[in-house]
Amino acid sequence: MKLTQSDLDALPQRQRAAFINCLSGYKSANLIGTVGPEGQANLAIVSSVVHLGANPPLLAFISRPPSVDRHTLEYLTNSGYFTINHVHAGIAEAAHQTSARYGRDESEFSAVGLTAEYGALHPAPYVAQSMIKIGLALKDIKPIELNGTVMVIGEIVEVLLPDNALAEDGFVDLAEMDTVTIGGLDGYYRVEPLFRLSYAKPGLPPRRL
Amino acid sequence: MKLTQSDLDALPQRQRAAFINCLSGYKSANLIGTVGPEGQANLAIVSSVVHLGANPPLLAFISRPPSVDRHTLEYLTNSGYFTINHVHAGIAEAAHQTSARYGRDESEFSAVGLTAEYGALHPAPYVAQSMIKIGLALKDIKPIELNGTVMVIGEIVEVLLPDNALAEDGFVDLAEMDTVTIGGLDGYYRVEPLFRLSYAKPGLPPRRL
Repeated sequence: MKLTQSDLDALPQRQRAAFINCLSGYKSANLIGTVGPEGQANLAIVSSVVHLGANPPLLAFISRPPSVDRHTLEYLTNSGYFTINHVHAGIAEAAHQTSARYGRDESEFSAVGLTAEYGALHPAPYVAQSMIKIGLALKDIKPIELNGTVMVIGEIVEVLLPDNALAEDGFVDLAEMDTVTIGGLDGYYRVEPLFRLSYAKPGLPPRRL
Repeated sequence: MKLTQSDLDALPQRQRAAFINCLSGYKSANLIGTVGPEGQANLAIVSSVVHLGANPPLLAFISRPPSVDRHTLEYLTNSGYFTINHVHAGIAEAAHQTSARYGRDESEFSAVGLTAEYGALHPAPYVAQSMIKIGLALKDIKPIELNGTVMVIGEIVEVLLPDNALAEDGFVDLAEMDTVTIGGLDGYYRVEPLFRLSYAKPGLPPRRL
């Protein structure tokens, strides 16, 4: 089956959004924690966190236009910090529920039954129930003129993870943490290891590690 | 276990890269197809494809600095088009092998045993073996000054997928396509559906669809 631009344009808006959201492949499932001016603990599920680079350690995510009432973007801009918290199967439904439009006075943490947890290095809340929690200092917000979204870039200042999670070679097996992945707008998936592959070199077939 | 910036700085470079690459969560597994000035069919695995927006339909990926010999970036800049092809379990090892540094005269397609396929709308090659293939027109290349990478943004001009793949509501079940996901630099994972959740509203617990 082939769809061209005119076929996409002809799709009803919801169907089109659902479809296009499936086309990037699997997405990361993370909760972004931020703190408001009155200390409000804000939380939002985001499926667009990407790795930008290891040195300096940079992660980024895409946020909708700042014109709309976006607490996450407003709060991280003002406080200069945010957290990224991995979503595992046990908290996937609570995580999804953070996408409801709660008012400024209602914390998503208490609304969905998750617990805010604080570190000493910055004021943004972590999700206590998450297995992998990352604190980041805001480094840049890049406008994407093509559709009015922005890319938020943070530098990692702190990583909290279970003691046994970090392997000798630096690998973290996300399947062991039961981290989930997202397909489209609303599909949650569990994951199982297939294999790890050796660093690729021309003329050598990939070796399973 | 807690790691701060000085702990990260103290990690050996490879270990650090492996670790930081795991922290964004699961990554999409895609092959980027481009065409060179002499018609070379170029192919590169990329784990940073993200959804930017549905209207216009935009996808993006992160590429390393253009200073290094990056055929993908050079070719898509010159031709104005590229393709994104989902990686399923059956071609994951071949896909990984495209990350080896092949010379300008050697096509990754033939080197790893994948087949280039062409459409009528643009000159960039698709991967015949992929289940979901997307043709994109280059729209922007945004420099990320913090680490010298760039974000390549394309607008979807064509989508090729199996006849039964697109559900009434626009959803595509990537697990049915056996699309894989990537953890870190070299971990490949198979995926199984957990649930789909209804659009979230305050005061209503999420409903499984």
